[in-house]
Amino acid sequence: MVEHSGLDIMCLNKYSPGSSSSSSSNAEKKLFSKLKVSLTKTYPQKNAETLSAQYGTNLLLIGVSVMLALAQHGPAVKEEHLLAFITALMLVQLVWMLCYMIRRERERSLVPERDAHAGTSWIRGDARQQRFCHYYTPLNLALLCERVTVNDCAVCSGGLTMLALLSLIMDAFRIGYFVGYHSCISAVLGVYPIVHALHTISQVHFLWFHIKDVIKKYETFERFGVIHAVFTNLLLWCNGVMSEAEHFLNNQRRRLTELGYANISTEAEPHCNCTTSVCSMFSTSLYYLYPFNIEYHIFVSAMLFVMWKNIGRTLDRHSNRKRPSTRSPGLLLGPLLGLLALASSITVLVVYLIHVEKSEQTREAAVSMFYCYGVVMLSCMCGASGAGLLVYRVEDWPMDTGSNPSRQLDTELLLGSSLGSWLMSWCSVVAVAAAGRGSPSFRWICLAYSLLLVLEKCVQNLFIVESLYRRRRDPDEGPVPEIFSVTPAPAVPPYDGIVNRGYETQDKRCAALEGEAVENSAAFSRKHTDVTLPVGHRLNVTPGRKRQILKNITIFLFMCNVSLWILPAFGCRPQYDNGLELETFGYSVWTTVLNVAIPMNLFYRMHSVASLFEVFRKV
Amino acid sequence: MVEHSGLDIMCLNKYSPGSSSSSSSNAEKKLFSKLKVSLTKTYPQKNAETLSAQYGTNLLLIGVSVMLALAQHGPAVKEEHLLAFITALMLVQLVWMLCYMIRRERERSLVPERDAHAGTSWIRGDARQQRFCHYYTPLNLALLCERVTVNDCAVCSGGLTMLALLSLIMDAFRIGYFVGYHSCISAVLGVYPIVHALHTISQVHFLWFHIKDVIKKYETFERFGVIHAVFTNLLLWCNGVMSEAEHFLNNQRRRLTELGYANISTEAEPHCNCTTSVCSMFSTSLYYLYPFNIEYHIFVSAMLFVMWKNIGRTLDRHSNRKRPSTRSPGLLLGPLLGLLALASSITVLVVYLIHVEKSEQTREAAVSMFYCYGVVMLSCMCGASGAGLLVYRVEDWPMDTGSNPSRQLDTELLLGSSLGSWLMSWCSVVAVAAAGRGSPSFRWICLAYSLLLVLEKCVQNLFIVESLYRRRRDPDEGPVPEIFSVTPAPAVPPYDGIVNRGYETQDKRCAALEGEAVENSAAFSRKHTDVTLPVGHRLNVTPGRKRQILKNITIFLFMCNVSLWILPAFGCRPQYDNGLELETFGYSVWTTVLNVAIPMNLFYRMHSVASLFEVFRKV
Repeated sequence: MVEHSGLDIMCLNKYSPGSSSSSSSNAEKKLFSKLKVSLTKTYPQKNAETLSAQYGTNLLLIGVSVMLALAQHGPAVKEEHLLAFITALMLVQLVWMLCYMIRRERERSLVPERDAHAGTSWIRGDARQQRFCHYYTPLNLALLCERVTVNDCAVCSGGLTMLALLSLIMDAFRIGYFVGYHSCISAVLGVYPIVHALHTISQVHFLWFHIKDVIKKYETFERFGVIHAVFTNLLLWCNGVMSEAEHFLNNQRRRLTELGYANISTEAEPHCNCTTSVCSMFSTSLYYLYPFNIEYHIFVSAMLFVMWKNIGRTLDRHSNRKRPSTRSPGLLLGPLLGLLALASSITVLVVYLIHVEKSEQTREAAVSMFYCYGVVMLSCMCGASGAGLLVYRVEDWPMDTGSNPSRQLDTELLLGSSLGSWLMSWCSVVAVAAAGRGSPSFRWICLAYSLLLVLEKCVQNLFIVESLYRRRRDPDEGPVPEIFSVTPAPAVPPYDGIVNRGYETQDKRCAALEGEAVENSAAFSRKHTDVTLPVGHRLNVTPGRKRQILKNITIFLFMCNVSLWILPAFGCRPQYDNGLELETFGYSVWTTVLNVAIPMNLFYRMHSVASLFEVFRKV
Repeated sequence: MVEHSGLDIMCLNKYSPGSSSSSSSNAEKKLFSKLKVSLTKTYPQKNAETLSAQYGTNLLLIGVSVMLALAQHGPAVKEEHLLAFITALMLVQLVWMLCYMIRRERERSLVPERDAHAGTSWIRGDARQQRFCHYYTPLNLALLCERVTVNDCAVCSGGLTMLALLSLIMDAFRIGYFVGYHSCISAVLGVYPIVHALHTISQVHFLWFHIKDVIKKYETFERFGVIHAVFTNLLLWCNGVMSEAEHFLNNQRRRLTELGYANISTEAEPHCNCTTSVCSMFSTSLYYLYPFNIEYHIFVSAMLFVMWKNIGRTLDRHSNRKRPSTRSPGLLLGPLLGLLALASSITVLVVYLIHVEKSEQTREAAVSMFYCYGVVMLSCMCGASGAGLLVYRVEDWPMDTGSNPSRQLDTELLLGSSLGSWLMSWCSVVAVAAAGRGSPSFRWICLAYSLLLVLEKCVQNLFIVESLYRRRRDPDEGPVPEIFSVTPAPAVPPYDGIVNRGYETQDKRCAALEGEAVENSAAFSRKHTDVTLPVGHRLNVTPGRKRQILKNITIFLFMCNVSLWILPAFGCRPQYDNGLELETFGYSVWTTVLNVAIPMNLFYRMHSVASLFEVFRKV
C-alpha cells in the first residue's frame, strides 16, 4: 500500500545532465529520469509506519535514559535537563497541532472521513446529547451526529476533560512552587509547567475535534506528527510515574527513619527560603494530583495511537452505523453494592494511612486489615465476573468477528497492563512460601490475597473481552459486516485529505439519522415480538432479564475497580510495608518490581473502569 | 467465531430433576436443559485465546518471580526449586506432545491443512530438496512438497537442529558436572538435564513434522497445550539468560577483585570435591554453549507462537502456492566483504578478550579498538542497508498487502528486540554527555559508536521490513490474494481435525507439483520476453542487476550480523568495561539495563540473520 507523502525527493534533479548527443548520456538521462520518477513516487505505507514507529520509540528511550541517570542523583544529570528535553518535545507537538488545525480550517469544504470507533465517550460525557450513538469500547465512539459544537464542549463534563483540568491545577501548583523558590532553582522548572499547561489545553481541543480524523493527505508527515504526540505523552506519563514513585519512596524512607528502622537519606529540599507562605501546601498538594495527571497522559497516548493506526486506512461505511441506545431499568443491586464497596474502600484507605505510620503493631494490624478487605472484595469481584461469563454462555448473542483496531488495542492494553500486578502477586506468593519462622501472622492472608488478585484479573479480563466481542442480535441487520477489508471501497466517492463531519450542517444530518433511528427502533420492537420462542411464556422476558443482570454486574465491577484504583493511587501500598517480599527479594529488586507493577496496575484499573463503562452502555 | 472444543461441560446434568408433573419443575427442567445446551455449545475462540494467553503468561511470571528470588541468593529459594518447576513444565509439555502425535497417527487418513508460511527453512536446511519451494520470512516456509521423510530428516542439517544439538551437548556437560559433584548437590540438578535432553529431542521431532499444522479439532485444549509449550521455552530462555548473565558478572567481579578495584563476593562453588577429573572442563565449556541454547529456545518459542496463532484459522489456498526458486549468479562482492567482516570480528574478539583482563591501559586500548572497529562496521552496514532501500525505491515490485501472522510476528520481533540495544545506546550517549574531566579518551568514539548503532538498526529494520513486504512481479499471477479474510472459504471442502501432508503419497503430489512448476516456469519466461519495456534495450537487464545488487547486500549484512552476534555472545561486552555508564547510572541500574539489553540484542542479531537469509532467498 503506497501513500501520498507530499515529500518529494527532488535532489537528483541537479544531476540531470544538459543536452548531449552521445548515446551514453542519453541512457544516463533516461536512467536518472527513471530514478527521479521512482524516488518521487509515493512512499510505501509499511515503511512509513516502521520509520515513524522507530522515531517515536527512540524519542521515548532518550527520555528514559535521562530518567535513569537522574535516578542516580549524580552531579551531572539534573531534573532541569529532563524537563528541558520534555519541554522541547511539547513545543514541537504544539507546532504540529497548530499546523494541522490551520490546514483543516482551510480544507473545511471537503467532506471528511471519520473513524466512528476512535475517540472515547470520556471526551463527551453527556449521554443524552448522543442518544443516537452506540459505544463499543473505551477507545471508540460511534459519533455520527455531532451535536456537540465548540460551545457545547464547555458544557460537557467528560472524564478526560476532568483529568486534564486536574492536570492544569497541578501545573498551577508547580508554578506557585517555582515562584516561592525561584531564587535558587532553575528557570526550567518555571517554564515547564507553563508549556505543559498550554500543551494540555491545545491537546484537549485537538482531541475534541480531530481524534476521529482519518488522515489521507501528507500521510508520512502526519504519521511522524501523531507518533511524536503519542510518545511525548508516554514520556510525560513516565516522568509522572517516576516523580510520584520517588516521592512515595522518600516518604517511606522518612517514616522508616523516624521509626528508627533505617537511616536512609531522603530527597534534598531547595537550599533557599520560600518567598511565599504556601510552598509546603503546593508541594504536598501536588502529589495528590499526580494520579490524575498520570492517567490523563496514558489515555491520551492510547487515543493518539489509534489515530496513528487509522492514518491511510480505508473505512468500511457499514462500521460507522449507529445503533439505537436503550434505557437501563432495574438497576438497583449493582449500584448499591458498588457504592458499598467504594465507601468501604475509602474507609480502609483512611484507616490504613493513619495506622501504618504508627508503631510496628499498628502497622501489622493495618496491613492485615487491608488484606482481609482485599480478600472479600476480590472474591465478590470474581463471583460477579464469573456470573457475567455464565450469562454470556447462556445468552445467544453472536460474536463480532470483524477487525477493529481500537478494540484490539483495548484488549492488548488490558492484558498487557495485568502483567505488572500478576508479577507482583506471584512474587508475594514466592515470598510467603519462602518465609521462615518469625514471619508475620498475615502471611497466609497475604497468600490468599495474591492468588485472588491473579484470579480476579483473569476472570475480569475474560468478561470484558467477551463483552467487547459480543454483538447484539439486531433483527433487521444483514450479514456480519467486515470492518477491515482490503476489497475495493463501496460505491461512495473516495475521500481525499482530512475529513471532519464537525463542519457539516449538523441538523440536517441529525434529522436524517433521527428518522432512520426511529424507523429502526420500530422495526426492532416489531421483530422482537414476532419471534416465537420454543419454550414457555416465562422465557419471553429472559433476554431483558439477562441484560439487567449484566448491567448490574458491570456497574458493580465499575465501582469496585474505581475503589481499587483509589487505594494505591493515594498511598495504600502494603507491598512496601509488609516486609515479606523485602526479605526475599531485597530492597533493590523489590522496589524495582513495584515501581513497574504499581503504575501498570493503576493503568489497568482505570482502563477497566473505562472498558466496563462501555460494556455497560453496550449491554 | 466459535470452535469445537471437545470439552463438554456435563456437570449440570446431575441437576436435571426427575419426572415431575408440576409446572415449576417442568419450567426448571426446560431452563436447565437450555443451560446445558448453552454450556455444551462451542466455546468462543476469542475467549479461548484470552484464557490460554493468560495461563501461559502466569506460568512465565511464576518462573520469573522465582528467578528474582534466586538472584538474591537467600537461604530459602535455591536453584533446585527453579529447576524443579521448569522440569515439571517440560514433563507436562512432553506428555501433551506425545498425546498430540499419537492422535495424529490415528487420524492419518484425513487430508491435512497446513500453513505454508509457518515453520522455517532452518529446520530443513537443504535447498536442493525443496527446489519447488519459496521462502517468505524466517517463520514461514512454503513446503508443499514434503520429500523429506523421517529417514531424510537425519540427513538435513538445519540451523535449528544444529542449535538443538549443541543444546544436547550442553545437557551432557551438565550431567557430567552433576556426576562429579553428586555427593553435595541436589538430585534435581541431575534430573533436570536428562529431562531437558528428552524434551529437546521430542520437541525437534515435533517441530519437524507438526509445526505447520493448522489445528481444527479440540481447539481449546490444543491452545492450552501449544501456549504451554511457548511459555515453557520462553522460561527456559529466561533461565539461560539469567544463568549466563550471572556467570559473566561473576567473571567480571573476579577480574575486578584480582585487579584490586573491588572486593565483591562471587558465586559459591560446591563444597565437596569433584569425583572426576573433568569437572572444571565441564563447567567452563558449559558457558560457551549457553548462547546456542538461548537462541534455540527463543526461536522455538516464536515458532510455536505462530502455531498457536494458526489454531482454528481458515487458510486461503492461494497463499499456499509455491513459486519457482531462482538461481543466484553474480555473488562475489557481498560474500567477500562479509567474510572479511567475519574474520575481522573474530580477530577483534580474541584480541579484546586477551587484553581486557590485563592492566588498566590495555583495557582502555582494547575498548578503543572495539569502538573503532564498531564504527567502521556499522558505517558499512548502514551504507549497505541504505543502498538496498534505494534499490527498492527504484525497483517497481509491488507491496504485498496481504495479512500474514508469521511475517507480522517477524516484524514485531525485529522492532521489539531493537529496543534493548537502543536503550543501551542512548544511555551511553547520556553518559558521554554527562562525563566530566578525567573521563576516558574513548568517550567520543563511544558516542559515535552508540549513535551509529541506533542508526544501523533503524536502517536495517527498514530494509528487512521492506524486503519482507515486497512481492515479486509474477506475470501470470492474478489479483492480489487476500490471505486474511473472514469471507466464506473457497469451494474446497473444509478440513477437520489436524492435517499433515507429510503422510500423503509424496511422490504423487510432487509429480503433480513438478508438472505445474515446469508449466509455470515456461509461462513465466514466455511472459517475461513478451513485456515491451518503454525504455532502451540496455534496461532490459536492469531487474536482474538490481536483484544481484540486493543479493550481495543481503549476504554482506547476513555475515555482519553473524559477526555482531558472535562478539557479545562470547564475552566481548565493553559496556561493562568502559566505566562511563557505570559512573553515570550506578552499578545496579546499569547492570540491570545490560542484563535486559544484551540478551535482546543477541536475539535481534540472530533474528536479523534469519530474516536476511529469507530475504536472500526471496530476492
